[in-house]
Amino acid sequence: MNIAVVGVGLIGGSIGLAARGRLGAHVRGVGPEAPRAVERGALDEAAPDLASALDGADAAFVAVPVGAIPDVVDAVLAAAPPGCVVTDVGSTKRAVAAAHADERFVGGHPLAGAEAAGVDHAREDLFGGATWYLTPSRTTSGVLLERLHRLVTGLGAHPVAIDAETHDRMMAAVSHLPHVLANVLVAQATGALDGERLPPTGPSFRDATRVAGANPAIWPDIYLANRDALVVALDETVRRLGEARAVLVDGDAERIAAWQREADAERRALLEAGLVGGPVHELRAAVPNRPGVIADIALTLGEAGINISDMALSPSPDNTQGEIALWVAEPQAAAAAGLVAGLGFAVVS
Amino acid sequence: MNIAVVGVGLIGGSIGLAARGRLGAHVRGVGPEAPRAVERGALDEAAPDLASALDGADAAFVAVPVGAIPDVVDAVLAAAPPGCVVTDVGSTKRAVAAAHADERFVGGHPLAGAEAAGVDHAREDLFGGATWYLTPSRTTSGVLLERLHRLVTGLGAHPVAIDAETHDRMMAAVSHLPHVLANVLVAQATGALDGERLPPTGPSFRDATRVAGANPAIWPDIYLANRDALVVALDETVRRLGEARAVLVDGDAERIAAWQREADAERRALLEAGLVGGPVHELRAAVPNRPGVIADIALTLGEAGINISDMALSPSPDNTQGEIALWVAEPQAAAAAGLVAGLGFAVVS
Repeated sequence: MNIAVVGVGLIGGSIGLAARGRLGAHVRGVGPEAPRAVERGALDEAAPDLASALDGADAAFVAVPVGAIPDVVDAVLAAAPPGCVVTDVGSTKRAVAAAHADERFVGGHPLAGAEAAGVDHAREDLFGGATWYLTPSRTTSGVLLERLHRLVTGLGAHPVAIDAETHDRMMAAVSHLPHVLANVLVAQATGALDGERLPPTGPSFRDATRVAGANPAIWPDIYLANRDALVVALDETVRRLGEARAVLVDGDAERIAAWQREADAERRALLEAGLVGGPVHELRAAVPNRPGVIADIALTLGEAGINISDMALSPSPDNTQGEIALWVAEPQAAAAAGLVAGLGFAVVS
Repeated sequence: MNIAVVGVGLIGGSIGLAARGRLGAHVRGVGPEAPRAVERGALDEAAPDLASALDGADAAFVAVPVGAIPDVVDAVLAAAPPGCVVTDVGSTKRAVAAAHADERFVGGHPLAGAEAAGVDHAREDLFGGATWYLTPSRTTSGVLLERLHRLVTGLGAHPVAIDAETHDRMMAAVSHLPHVLANVLVAQATGALDGERLPPTGPSFRDATRVAGANPAIWPDIYLANRDALVVALDETVRRLGEARAVLVDGDAERIAAWQREADAERRALLEAGLVGGPVHELRAAVPNRPGVIADIALTLGEAGINISDMALSPSPDNTQGEIALWVAEPQAAAAAGLVAGLGFAVVS
């Protein structure tokens, strides 16, 4: 297995360390930190340019800063061999997915990182147990998606297929919006306190504002990379605050109580859903070997809240057919089988 | 010292236990739970009615549910002796302060409570170390404010004088608004996830939404009691979100970075200010013995962020003059002396 890493900082370096240490892959890298990455054991070779890095590569990871990703992915797709899967590690996915309809491209987003940047902080176990979003499109090659899925699993992460637009909307709602609200809360409290000391009202204010003023060196880029989805989320927040205001002005205690109960139930559902685990079930289906099929299955299950914990694709000898094996959580197996059958594929459970 | 407790639940019962146990006071109580409070040792006597409870009282604490406070305070002021300080324990203060210009009345708000209500959960140490806001007005009797200040200290709490309007605006900003935002965040994330599992993005979403759906049995009353200030706070939040939106749309990374730095500095300042402690300094001043003087001093220091950790008032023999002793944090002593002198009172440090 030959892997190319384009941009060898914290994430790229950790991919190199894990690919060499866990998968026995041969890893070439390119970028300013590549020589140092070789010293750290994150790369077998520092390539002098993209073409050399990608020569004979089975997979290429683009791990450059988020603003540079679209152009670098373009260049990598131009230089990569026909059978090489190309992915990136940016924190927003819609723009890059829209720009790259190439069947070799699958957007990616590992939920892993550290406070300190640079290859010197790279670790082989950075992705251990981490969720790693993959955003295949309807044009993505099934064989290449399956390869990337297995690779990401091999790096120690849990790959989760998700539609690029849903990914960005979700990240706006659960990460970027809470950061904006935390900033607004501290600014507003500073104004309201007007020199008074913060009352020791328990941990609610501390918790709600814990992420206020997060690292000014990286958060501008994170906000701006997901600007479109974040602006939509802000507009929705303003609308919801207007509804809350109306309920308060109305003074209907029973409606407020119902609102509290709903928020409680929603939060429990969100957090419990995030903790699903346990035994998995294997599901097999015969599928035609054409682009988009595997992506379709992955997205359909993802939309239904079913996570694919592992995936294997075995093409038939003549390469026109294939069998896909999916591993999903035991309680979701029947639903998954129904959805795959609903797409028109024969399921063997 | 004779103390009357009107409404003997968790808070009233704990006042009774602490007043008897720590101050050796004689405590009479009135309300449905009064007989049980006697059994628990929280009262010396269960009075059959307000008049009996207040007969000869030096201080009266109104600890009924928040919606009933204004009417009960009216009734208590009508029945209480001329030299009895009357206070309440409601979580919002502007409405009750405006309704009661009586020189015997001082609004109060202990930042203490427990999940379980009722006198059976009352504890002598419920107020130990707790902030207890007092909202004297310009008409409040200095002698009675000083008595209440010492009483609250004797119950184990730290009294903090604050303007009623600032109190409500502050509580809206640091408690009620974060609760509303937490509810909005979970509703919005539920919509955005659309069946996807919550990504394990670290603790930011959990923390930001920890208070979502707080106890539906009590939060409607808490929101509604502070409705006016909360509606103003919501409008301000919407305005600030509009500013944040404009900065994002503008795409100026340097402005966003400055915004992050400001939020970080504001949060540090808020939390550090909440942790001031250390040695205190005694400050004495001669003051005329007329209503409003002590309140004026307490409010002036409060507005400057200076907390009075203790207070003692000694009237002159002819009762026209007095000397007030104030204890403030060592580093704030010089500023406090300057402010008191600025009000026209001779300071002896």
